[in-house]
Parts: sequence; C-alpha cells; structure tokens
Amino acid sequence: MIIIGEKINGFIPATLKAIESRDEGYIRELAKKQTEFGADYLDVCAGTAPEIERDTLTWLIDLVQDTVETPLCIDSSDVNVILEMMPLAKRPGLINSISGEAGKCEAILPKIEGTDWKVVALTCDKNGIPTDPEVKFEIAKTLIAQAQDHGLSLDSIFIDPLVTTLATTGTSLLSFNEAVRKIKGAFPEVHITSGLSNISFGMPFRKAINTQFLALAMSAGMDSAIMDPTSPDMRATLYATDALLGNDDYCMNYLTAYRNGVIGAKKA
Amino acid sequence: MIIIGEKINGFIPATLKAIESRDEGYIRELAKKQTEFGADYLDVCAGTAPEIERDTLTWLIDLVQDTVETPLCIDSSDVNVILEMMPLAKRPGLINSISGEAGKCEAILPKIEGTDWKVVALTCDKNGIPTDPEVKFEIAKTLIAQAQDHGLSLDSIFIDPLVTTLATTGTSLLSFNEAVRKIKGAFPEVHITSGLSNISFGMPFRKAINTQFLALAMSAGMDSAIMDPTSPDMRATLYATDALLGNDDYCMNYLTAYRNGVIGAKKA
Repeated sequence: MIIIGEKINGFIPATLKAIESRDEGYIRELAKKQTEFGADYLDVCAGTAPEIERDTLTWLIDLVQDTVETPLCIDSSDVNVILEMMPLAKRPGLINSISGEAGKCEAILPKIEGTDWKVVALTCDKNGIPTDPEVKFEIAKTLIAQAQDHGLSLDSIFIDPLVTTLATTGTSLLSFNEAVRKIKGAFPEVHITSGLSNISFGMPFRKAINTQFLALAMSAGMDSAIMDPTSPDMRATLYATDALLGNDDYCMNYLTAYRNGVIGAKKA
Repeated sequence: MIIIGEKINGFIPATLKAIESRDEGYIRELAKKQTEFGADYLDVCAGTAPEIERDTLTWLIDLVQDTVETPLCIDSSDVNVILEMMPLAKRPGLINSISGEAGKCEAILPKIEGTDWKVVALTCDKNGIPTDPEVKFEIAKTLIAQAQDHGLSLDSIFIDPLVTTLATTGTSLLSFNEAVRKIKGAFPEVHITSGLSNISFGMPFRKAINTQFLALAMSAGMDSAIMDPTSPDMRATLYATDALLGNDDYCMNYLTAYRNGVIGAKKA
C-alpha cells in the first residue's frame, strides 16, 4: 500500500486552527508522526480562503520540508496554485490532482513531462462526479491516455475513482469497487487511491466505516489511500488486510509491525 | 448476518475454568451478553474430557435455557453426544456439525428429518481438510445433496468451508473466499458460516486478523459467523461492512446500533 498522509489539510478543523495561528510545532508533529507511521507522501492542502492559499501552502511546504524528507502531495483545486508550488518542492512528489475537468490535464501534464512527479487523477469531468462505474472507467481511460501522451509511466498515475457518500448512496462502495476492478483489470500497473473518509460523511462512528472501506477496497485492488496513518485502527486494518489478501509473504510486514508497536499496542 | 455466539466453549480457557468450577453466574452472563448483542444461536461445546462431555453439556444446556430463549447450537465432534443432547433442547436449534467423514450424515440427518433443526456442515471428509476451493465445493455439493435427500431446505444448511490458519497457509483467506463464491453461486439460499478465530491461530493481535477476515469473507458472500458478539470491534466491523456491502438499506441497522450503543460506544 502507498500511503498518502491526509492530516496536513486545512479542511480538518484542528489543522486549520494550527494554520491560522501559524502553530509550527503542531504541523511539524503531523509531518513527523505520519512519516513515522508509514506515510509515503504527505498531502498538504491549505483549506483557507483563495486569496491566502498561496501564502498558506508556501508556509506549510517549507515547514514540512524542514521537518521530514517525505515527498509532498501538493493538493489544491486550483491548477495555477499547484504550478506555483511545485518549484518549492525539494524533491518530486505527487500532484493532487488532475481530472477530466476542462484545462486541468492541459495545465499540469506538460509541466511534469520528463520529471519524476506523479499525479492523482480524479474520475470526474464537466458533467460532475459519476456514480456509474462504467463512466468512471471511461474517464480513467481518457486520463491515463492523456498522461501517457505526456510520457508518464503507468505507475506514475494514481486514479482516484471518487467514492460517493454512503449516507446518500447505498451502492457507494459497490460501485467504487466495480470501478477499481475495471481499471486494475485493464491497467494493472496504474495505482488506485481514494480519500477514505469521504465515504462516511454524515455518519456517526465514522472510523468503523472508514476502516472497512479500506479493507473492502483493498480486496478489489485499491493499492493506495489518502488516510490517517496515525490512527491505530487504520494501521491494524491495513496490515491485517494485506496479510489476508496474500500481499504480505509469511505475514512478515504484519509481524514486524506488531513487534515494533506499529500495530497491536495497548491502545490499538 | 446470522450470528452464532462462540463464547460458551470449553476450549476457551476462561470458559473451561467456569465449567470446571460449575460457575453458574459466569455461564449465565455469557448467555445473556451474547444474546443482548445479537447472537441468533448460542454455541455450547464442552471442551472437557470425553468421559465427562455428556455431563458437562447437560449442565451447560440446562443452564443456558434457564437464562435465555436463544436457540442452541449443539457442538460436539461425537455424533452420539449430539444425538443424546438434542432432546434436552426446548426448541430446535443448530447441530454443529456434520461433514463428509464416515457416519456423520448417516447418524444425524435422519434424526432431524421433518423437524425444524438446522445443521452446520463442514467441508472435510476422510481425506482431511482440503485447501483447494474446488475440493471444498465438491464436498459441499455432496453434503447439500445428502441433506436435501432428508428433506432439509437449503436455508437450513450452514456450510462451513473451514478456513485454514493464515500463519501456515498464506492463501487461507483467498481460498476460503473462492470456496464461498462457488458455493453461494451454485446455492444462493444455503448459508455460509465460519469459526472466525481459527484463521489467526498462532498470530499476535488476533483481533485485527479476525475482524478483517469477517469483513472480507462477508464481501465474498459469507452470511453467518461463529463469533464473539460481545466484542465491540467485531460488532463495529459487522455493522459497517453490512452497510458498505449494501445489505443494510439506508444504513438503518447501522444507525440503530449506534443509537442503542451497540456500536460506537466510547470503548468501541
């Protein structure tokens, strides 16, 4: 599993508070803890008003890179902001995100052509977010083709099939998993990722839904997640599911994680 | 999900202690708690030496039936013991178990013909426990045919495809799930059950493996489990997975369970 740490995101109230008060210690701790618990990338998202998004991201990016060496996942809905932030990165990371929306691919893909940057591609377009797995798959195919036209290798592409909210769409997981199976079936080297917590929006006890979404989506072929690696429940689910799905030879990762206290500690 | 409460089993050390000291309060509490948390059947298994198995089971069965009205799941590897215990039951329950081993079907099936008893059927035979899903399926087909010959309806049959231990067989879950899909594909009305904790034998932090086994097996079509319904983690996994798999319209069961403190309480 490729873990994208989700915590440095101004849409999370506690993180927004730290951003607004420029609480360096809080952000550094998020960077350190997520790295320590296995984050391969650290998502940085301002979540502040558009007019201060650049300032916020600049502060976050500098601070995170001053704390850890984990590559960044630069997260903004504004492609121009992404393009301005990329030169601040000390090493190539992930762009979050492109999609089928007008102008996104055209703006981003030429800028990462020939570099080691990778990209998250959302299966939505000018018609919005589809619920039909077949439509998700068609958009994914188009995005993959465009990325390949710009020289990206398949394993530089992270498709996010945009899970809908379970509270409003009962087939949320089922159609997500069907899209995952279609995409992985056609492009085994492409990664599939998802922001786990979206599915439980509006539900109580969200942790239960988020952890089981992780397990069930992994069983369909999802091999990355935008998640909170500091959550003991998430880690337990991830390691146990990988072992059960046969992705962890002799359960070595599971056993090592247990031995190192990454899973199974008293509070887990 | 049809839940078979697993706790009144002398193979569990704490339960064995209570059995040996004839601790009525302890056993009554197990019966009450498991029922309160949704057990549809209560497994009763002596786990004591063969020469005292009948006495032990008689004591357990009388005690459980004096405490709750939940039907019993009479659990013994000795068909004669099962046959002797059945008349003690105040209402039809589950027989645990028959299998392809010589004499089991022949002893049990005629005795439940024309009654409301249901039966757990293990996919093993004189050659032992198969790991190949195709062999599990073939044994299941034979057992189902034999049960039908004795007038049992398909939904009176609980096939247990006997999950192997993950620590020794890395494909344990994968071959279990393949067997589940084959059996459910051919016989949608037959129930599939499993003793959840077998898979994690010899592993640390077994709860993580057991909960994710539950979720992943449910996604393949398992619709019953021999499990501990008093475990908050098991309940959270069960309700969340049912909601995600579309088995819980409008998440009503999940929301009701949350409202009633069955899931999501502080300690969950």
